[in-house]
Amino acid sequence: MASEGREFRPGQRPGSPEFARALRDAEILTAPHVSEELRGQLLDVFAAFSGRRQPERQQKAPEPMPAEAGADRPIVFVGAGLPADLRAANVLWFHSTNAGVDGVLAEGDWPADILFTRTVGAMDRRIAEYTLTWMLADCQAVTGYTDQQRARVWKRQPVRLLQGETAVVFGAGAIGRAVGRLLKAFGMRTIAVATSERESADFDRVVTHDDIAKVVPEARWLISTLPLTPQTRDLFDGKLFASAEDACFINVGRGATVNLPALHDALTAGRVRSAVLDVLADEPAGPEHPCWNLPRTVITPHTAGVSADSDIRDDFAACLAAVQAGRTPERAVDPGRGY
Amino acid sequence: MASEGREFRPGQRPGSPEFARALRDAEILTAPHVSEELRGQLLDVFAAFSGRRQPERQQKAPEPMPAEAGADRPIVFVGAGLPADLRAANVLWFHSTNAGVDGVLAEGDWPADILFTRTVGAMDRRIAEYTLTWMLADCQAVTGYTDQQRARVWKRQPVRLLQGETAVVFGAGAIGRAVGRLLKAFGMRTIAVATSERESADFDRVVTHDDIAKVVPEARWLISTLPLTPQTRDLFDGKLFASAEDACFINVGRGATVNLPALHDALTAGRVRSAVLDVLADEPAGPEHPCWNLPRTVITPHTAGVSADSDIRDDFAACLAAVQAGRTPERAVDPGRGY
Repeated sequence: MASEGREFRPGQRPGSPEFARALRDAEILTAPHVSEELRGQLLDVFAAFSGRRQPERQQKAPEPMPAEAGADRPIVFVGAGLPADLRAANVLWFHSTNAGVDGVLAEGDWPADILFTRTVGAMDRRIAEYTLTWMLADCQAVTGYTDQQRARVWKRQPVRLLQGETAVVFGAGAIGRAVGRLLKAFGMRTIAVATSERESADFDRVVTHDDIAKVVPEARWLISTLPLTPQTRDLFDGKLFASAEDACFINVGRGATVNLPALHDALTAGRVRSAVLDVLADEPAGPEHPCWNLPRTVITPHTAGVSADSDIRDDFAACLAAVQAGRTPERAVDPGRGY
Repeated sequence: MASEGREFRPGQRPGSPEFARALRDAEILTAPHVSEELRGQLLDVFAAFSGRRQPERQQKAPEPMPAEAGADRPIVFVGAGLPADLRAANVLWFHSTNAGVDGVLAEGDWPADILFTRTVGAMDRRIAEYTLTWMLADCQAVTGYTDQQRARVWKRQPVRLLQGETAVVFGAGAIGRAVGRLLKAFGMRTIAVATSERESADFDRVVTHDDIAKVVPEARWLISTLPLTPQTRDLFDGKLFASAEDACFINVGRGATVNLPALHDALTAGRVRSAVLDVLADEPAGPEHPCWNLPRTVITPHTAGVSADSDIRDDFAACLAAVQAGRTPERAVDPGRGY
């Protein structure tokens, strides 16, 4: 079945007119985690492109994929990963519901004639809003007041303005810049720690990793958006935290950039006054994970930049528009580059 | 003692050179609620103006005021109100630690030769940050995640972007405009409800009270910054809430603009999905107050715009600089106007 399936592929790079023509005959299958509502929206978008409605029976890929799936038509698959039996079958296009595609690429060489796109959506902005939310929640005693509400207590808690405080943002990539832009617009003083010195309208100042010891003591907020690289692994260690002065640490980058016992010590010693961690080196965290024992800390389950259905739909539609126009979609994954 | 004290007053309007000269000889007394730290800062500011340090013994006004207070020098008093014995004594200048001064003015005619100033500080901005905080806390499930932290639970909660949502802000005075400005800069769609139609850079659109029924259904957020007037009393009633569609209601204006049973009904019916109330018609709220029974609501104790020590210090310093320059301070209270 798998080898028969190959005949549906035009054997042309996605972006060619042949590819667009082949795509018009495709069926859309969606992974079981895709909601009914989103599936309906994807089918609507595709119907507008192909000029016909999908038959009902093959709209959703069951698990495991039945042998007849994609037997009579090429397939467009939307999901978090591409099931192995589909990879070998008639798939023309795989659209990832996630931004991170390292897991998919790790499964083997990607066939050049399958279009591979991903959802980035409003991830940068989502992470920026997440970050500002937890900063403001700290300033305005949200948890304290919520607890008082439950206890029917009318009592003032210390609150303070966030405007004018200093945030040091680690990473000046798309996410770091979105965070810096939002905080700067909010009236904060923003310093980026980047791999190279540069000008950026998104920050008041950009420094390099050589200046970390200089800028950390200035920070009321230490915010990491860093990817995991040999340079960033365990970057947030006892030495870095020891130079913090009553800072709040927020991690929306990668968990393994943080030495968790060192963070625990810094929280206990008061160098770090509180922490918000959206990522851990080992996820998910079971009830025995040491992260839950960190004082004055909130853990969120890698949710800061999670794609909403609207992100998946909008990026899918943008990819389809590019294919229709004979272009390679902007959200196309370059397997060599890794994203 | 009181009548003797009057001799220290120059008998000139505050703003005259005689007044500034007399002020240089004054002692600063502070109310018991003023912190040691703030008192030290006020004394420093005043020493820079008068060219001499205060003697230690009279820095803080005890309760009740001793007969000898202000016997040998005129007095500057900083506090929430002016004690009656000081009002009749040698007071040259009373600086209120609050923005609201109706209580002080209600105690009797204000003598024209006592300078009366108040702290406004960053109140507008504080209220704007308070408002954005609770909006973001709702979008990012802050309470849900804080609860999960306590229960050691790693589980995604529904979150969403605030950017692009519609806020209807009631009131286009200084506070309403500060709220509108912050939300607009954040990327929200902002509509003000004002007493008259006008252009404002702080909002996308300004409508009048006649258009309330038209704009309320568009609102994801209903935010009131309204003062209490005959027009605004009970404005937020069953009729207004009935036109809301899944809106969150935030009140940073005055409590008596809201019909609390009507809000309760709207929350129960789901017209209003949640509420945050910083003000109540009757404050403070004891444990039996019906506000604690409102579903999906947080009550804060009239704290959104509360003055910080830095506000009191900065406004005191600005007043002193105006006096030194022979001007009437911008923060001077006009007893006829009421603020």
